[in-house]
Amino acid sequence: MAGSPSRAAGRRLQLPLLSFLQGATAVLFAVFVRYNHKTDAALWHRGNHSNADNEFYFRYPSFQDVHAMVFVGFGFLMVFLQRYGFSSVGFTFLLAAFALQWSTLVQGFLHSFHGGHIHVGVESMINADFCAGAVLISFGAVLGKTGPAQLLLMALLEVVLFGINEFVLLHLLGVRDAGGSMTIHTFGAYFGLVLSQVLYRPQLEKSKHRQGLYHSDLFAMIGTIFLWIFWPSFNAALTSLGAGQHRTALNTYYSLAASTLGTFALSALVGEDGRLDMVHIQNAALAGRVVVGTSSEMMLTPFGALAAGFLAGTVSTLGYKFFTPILESKFKVQDTCGVHNLHGMPGVLGVLLGVLVAGLATHEAYGDGLESVFPLIAEGQRSATSQAMYQLFGLFVTLMFASVGGGLGGLLLKLPFLDSPPDSQCYEDQVHWQAPGATLSPLPTPAFQVPGEHEDKAQRPLRVEEADTQA
Amino acid sequence: MAGSPSRAAGRRLQLPLLSFLQGATAVLFAVFVRYNHKTDAALWHRGNHSNADNEFYFRYPSFQDVHAMVFVGFGFLMVFLQRYGFSSVGFTFLLAAFALQWSTLVQGFLHSFHGGHIHVGVESMINADFCAGAVLISFGAVLGKTGPAQLLLMALLEVVLFGINEFVLLHLLGVRDAGGSMTIHTFGAYFGLVLSQVLYRPQLEKSKHRQGLYHSDLFAMIGTIFLWIFWPSFNAALTSLGAGQHRTALNTYYSLAASTLGTFALSALVGEDGRLDMVHIQNAALAGRVVVGTSSEMMLTPFGALAAGFLAGTVSTLGYKFFTPILESKFKVQDTCGVHNLHGMPGVLGVLLGVLVAGLATHEAYGDGLESVFPLIAEGQRSATSQAMYQLFGLFVTLMFASVGGGLGGLLLKLPFLDSPPDSQCYEDQVHWQAPGATLSPLPTPAFQVPGEHEDKAQRPLRVEEADTQA
Amino acid sequence: MAGSPSRAAGRRLQLPLLSFLQGATAVLFAVFVRYNHKTDAALWHRGNHSNADNEFYFRYPSFQDVHAMVFVGFGFLMVFLQRYGFSSVGFTFLLAAFALQWSTLVQGFLHSFHGGHIHVGVESMINADFCAGAVLISFGAVLGKTGPAQLLLMALLEVVLFGINEFVLLHLLGVRDAGGSMTIHTFGAYFGLVLSQVLYRPQLEKSKHRQGLYHSDLFAMIGTIFLWIFWPSFNAALTSLGAGQHRTALNTYYSLAASTLGTFALSALVGEDGRLDMVHIQNAALAGRVVVGTSSEMMLTPFGALAAGFLAGTVSTLGYKFFTPILESKFKVQDTCGVHNLHGMPGVLGVLLGVLVAGLATHEAYGDGLESVFPLIAEGQRSATSQAMYQLFGLFVTLMFASVGGGLGGLLLKLPFLDSPPDSQCYEDQVHWQAPGATLSPLPTPAFQVPGEHEDKAQRPLRVEEADTQA
Repeated sequence: MAGSPSRAAGRRLQLPLLSFLQGATAVLFAVFVRYNHKTDAALWHRGNHSNADNEFYFRYPSFQDVHAMVFVGFGFLMVFLQRYGFSSVGFTFLLAAFALQWSTLVQGFLHSFHGGHIHVGVESMINADFCAGAVLISFGAVLGKTGPAQLLLMALLEVVLFGINEFVLLHLLGVRDAGGSMTIHTFGAYFGLVLSQVLYRPQLEKSKHRQGLYHSDLFAMIGTIFLWIFWPSFNAALTSLGAGQHRTALNTYYSLAASTLGTFALSALVGEDGRLDMVHIQNAALAGRVVVGTSSEMMLTPFGALAAGFLAGTVSTLGYKFFTPILESKFKVQDTCGVHNLHGMPGVLGVLLGVLVAGLATHEAYGDGLESVFPLIAEGQRSATSQAMYQLFGLFVTLMFASVGGGLGGLLLKLPFLDSPPDSQCYEDQVHWQAPGATLSPLPTPAFQVPGEHEDKAQRPLRVEEADTQA
Repeated sequence: MAGSPSRAAGRRLQLPLLSFLQGATAVLFAVFVRYNHKTDAALWHRGNHSNADNEFYFRYPSFQDVHAMVFVGFGFLMVFLQRYGFSSVGFTFLLAAFALQWSTLVQGFLHSFHGGHIHVGVESMINADFCAGAVLISFGAVLGKTGPAQLLLMALLEVVLFGINEFVLLHLLGVRDAGGSMTIHTFGAYFGLVLSQVLYRPQLEKSKHRQGLYHSDLFAMIGTIFLWIFWPSFNAALTSLGAGQHRTALNTYYSLAASTLGTFALSALVGEDGRLDMVHIQNAALAGRVVVGTSSEMMLTPFGALAAGFLAGTVSTLGYKFFTPILESKFKVQDTCGVHNLHGMPGVLGVLLGVLVAGLATHEAYGDGLESVFPLIAEGQRSATSQAMYQLFGLFVTLMFASVGGGLGGLLLKLPFLDSPPDSQCYEDQVHWQAPGATLSPLPTPAFQVPGEHEDKAQRPLRVEEADTQA
Repeated sequence: MAGSPSRAAGRRLQLPLLSFLQGATAVLFAVFVRYNHKTDAALWHRGNHSNADNEFYFRYPSFQDVHAMVFVGFGFLMVFLQRYGFSSVGFTFLLAAFALQWSTLVQGFLHSFHGGHIHVGVESMINADFCAGAVLISFGAVLGKTGPAQLLLMALLEVVLFGINEFVLLHLLGVRDAGGSMTIHTFGAYFGLVLSQVLYRPQLEKSKHRQGLYHSDLFAMIGTIFLWIFWPSFNAALTSLGAGQHRTALNTYYSLAASTLGTFALSALVGEDGRLDMVHIQNAALAGRVVVGTSSEMMLTPFGALAAGFLAGTVSTLGYKFFTPILESKFKVQDTCGVHNLHGMPGVLGVLLGVLVAGLATHEAYGDGLESVFPLIAEGQRSATSQAMYQLFGLFVTLMFASVGGGLGGLLLKLPFLDSPPDSQCYEDQVHWQAPGATLSPLPTPAFQVPGEHEDKAQRPLRVEEADTQA
């Protein structure tokens, strides 16, 4: 019970434990983390560089867009719940701020551990934000049904598995996945979905009526649009400099535009009375950038980007309409934000598209650029076909890590002392947030109501007339 | 009737037709659109460039700002309507996503069609977003009175005329218009205004009372501020590299600051009891960047930018206060967002300012920079005076294209099967969007109401007086 | 009285006076302000530069982030007040637009006045925005209790003192303060706090109940998040190119992440029933970037950044919980936004951290980079210890300028003709803004309330318990 001493004590003790988590992280930073040669005052000036050569200028603008997506985009996208806005934005803030520190360590140990130290710079900032993004995708699958302590434990585990999966794919298998269709979207989605399945709450049906407030949906659109506009930077942030980043951004731009049209088309087709559903627009329109996550750095061609984006938008919309209910009824997965439709299916499609485009790679098409997109093919160690096979194999590895990890995570989150909110408190901010005496929330009334059709039908129209006649 | 089977069927059929539109666009992309030499893996590496030379790094950060303005800025600026927020943001999203694809083709055929192909890169992304901006300006003039199918038809036509007008001005007449006072603001505004005139609805007066909700106005301010802060990037996005972009951003920055002060000054001067009007702040403060759209790349001088911005802010504010009512009563133009005040008049002023500044151009003032700002003058093909005359002529060409196009568009949009919303459903989301059982909207109550006094309508007129007399 | 002819006349006259302020500024611009050699068409092309060398490309992306923080971040952060949102965003807009022009002149005369002219470019844009930021910090201390004319007078004075203080610190004392812990945060905070003390309103207690509306807090989170994500750019905007900007952004990034965790930990620890307080999250989480404002360009080490950020987050949270009430009761300072917790204390901590890190500077740690971070030490004019002493002395100078200036400002703002809002109208938009007949505001009801239970206040305390016991 939210107000009972025991729970209060539980809450009072759990988040403060963050201090120890932060303390431990700080100690590890002290021991292992150092500036890299593009960040360190002495090392940078030792080499005889022009300042324009500093990677900062090639990657930082993209990083800032990614940073905005992680904190503004993911945070507000989840504000669509009527009385869970504080938690959606607040826990996104907390989770991402923790995940980016923790993944700086995990990814550092796996990717850039030299001479006993992790060397950090703008690339590690981008990689850490990417990992935080995967954690937030999983968060979307359990949104409203988990407390902050549970979420932090989830992040603690997921960041480690994310790093290992990424290491296996990129370094051991030589898989290409610049925009993270595999490492971020597919991994984050299925980790969260399996975890949500383990935490299945049979009595939660009713919670549905707590979703959606007119202005909450407008806040959510802030998240949608910021994710949408900056996604070209997300996919391009870590691709090869020059034409690589240029092409990646361009492909993503076209793919997103097409998925938006596909979403509107399908949403109207399947909507009641042919009306549009805001849930589709908020989410499915974003599927276009997931589907090109792997292939946007490749010679996908502008046409390929449009076709892939349109396909992703339609599939994602159909998923929200028809598959989400099945997911809950048949598979016992309560996918609060529909991450399966937004990240899961489009992610898998994106991997398959990557398999196709990689398999079609030729020296003619890439010229000397082959070295930067498919180094192993350029060096003659692999044929395009075998690269494609490795890409496909990467999908299975990712699904394996995600499922096992999500299942394990679900069991951990069931630990009794973790203060999981009771069914009656799910999707409610009040269990986690103080309501200062004067904090107010809009009075719920039916959507699109014409003033006057509220309780007292007779009086309101009058009042409006009055207001008008005064004017 | 919104819910009638016929209309429902109409809606259900129209938006899905988007799929064919998208299919046709995709086919045209497949046939004609190719990566340019800065985007293509093989072509880029063939030339022996340093990655820092890739245009991506000079223009992409500005592109991202433009992209944010188009989707966040225009979208939320139009959320000021009380129950039309879904449509304002949603249709902005749809229209812009379609327009940028379509204009990539149209502009490509006209501007960068070589060897049977359109070559795309960051410049074409910026140009496409610019064209989408013009379409959204026109959207502002018919906001709330048109359905998505009508809007898409409008975009289909407007994008073509935008491209032709732009081609005539920039390529045939050698007009300079980096920030689009002519090609974007003047064209978009008058195209939309004439179109709105053709669609005049004599019975729509009352709809006014549907405008304005406290939080809707705050959402609109999100749009205003994002448009305001990023406009220096908009004007600078396509100007010459180096000092050109630098100067353009600086001029726009000063002009915007001055137009903001001018708007507050005039809004208080003409406001009832000297109070400020949020509509003025949301819109007129932005006029400063329209007025320097043409001249911001020129040697306008910081003083010139301030003076122009201040003038634009005052003119725009007076337009909202005094001219908009006349526009509806006398000219039968129902300009929902006041695009005439925000884009029309300031756009024309901007052209005239461009005429003046171009006419004053000298080799002394521009030095070797003359080549990049006024190539025809630098090459001795034109005198500054003749360049000024061409600039002025460009205005008439633009007004001609905009008026004829807007009139034609208005007739097309009257086609009966296009599902235009009935007067009673204008400015209402419900005709276009599903209202899931739990979607809620705030209960309308008078502005600035003191809590607790909301039940009794009778006292409302009084109450405000009381509140005042307490003071 | 808001509605009385006298007040109305007062308002109607005051803001229009802005025109003269703008006119005077414009004249000064005409006489003194010129493009610098990186912005002027002739000067830039005279030197034989590659366009990539133009400072625009190194600093403009950071400038845009700073610009977004000033107008979006500060503006929306202050929307947390229930019925003061128009004024929070609107006056932020007005103040910043004036301050950046005025400070371009003041800073220009003090920093870049050569040959009778002020030379402007992207650096002056950044400096002007920084100064506007300091003015907005002071605004936060008097938010809701001052009219626009008073605020403009405050800005007029503060910008001058800001420029002088900055000149004394950076040019006379050789203090390093890239991110402005001293010049921006400490100065802005104490200037505003002393000013607020002079304007103390003993009867204002009750106004507290006007704070906080559910959606207002969500709007405020928009401000919080945009400030949070872009602060690395703020601190890095003016640091030395290359590794300097790179390192500054990285340090700020880590510090912010740690302060977020510290804030959540402490907020839960001190919150009633261990619940989180949105006020802490909105504000204290940002303290992390204030505390590294001075030292983020130095070799702070990633660990140092984490430790400093965590400390700042905890101290700031405790300030909101325990010190703000004392500040009002004992020191008669009504700090509306808690700028003492967000900018004051963290700012002073930041200065002390800078003293420490500067004192530890060695040639080994900085190598040839020492020249760009501590030129006076590199040139042998100072020892690290004496540099540290100068840093510390800079704090006292800043506090002196801020207190004297704030006191003086407070007396000026008391001038009777300045139309200060009466206590009953504090935190109310209606005194400053028109309420068009149809402008509506959400009906206030208790936070997290279950729909339908809003009428009877009696059950409200109970209700929460019930909800709990169901669990």
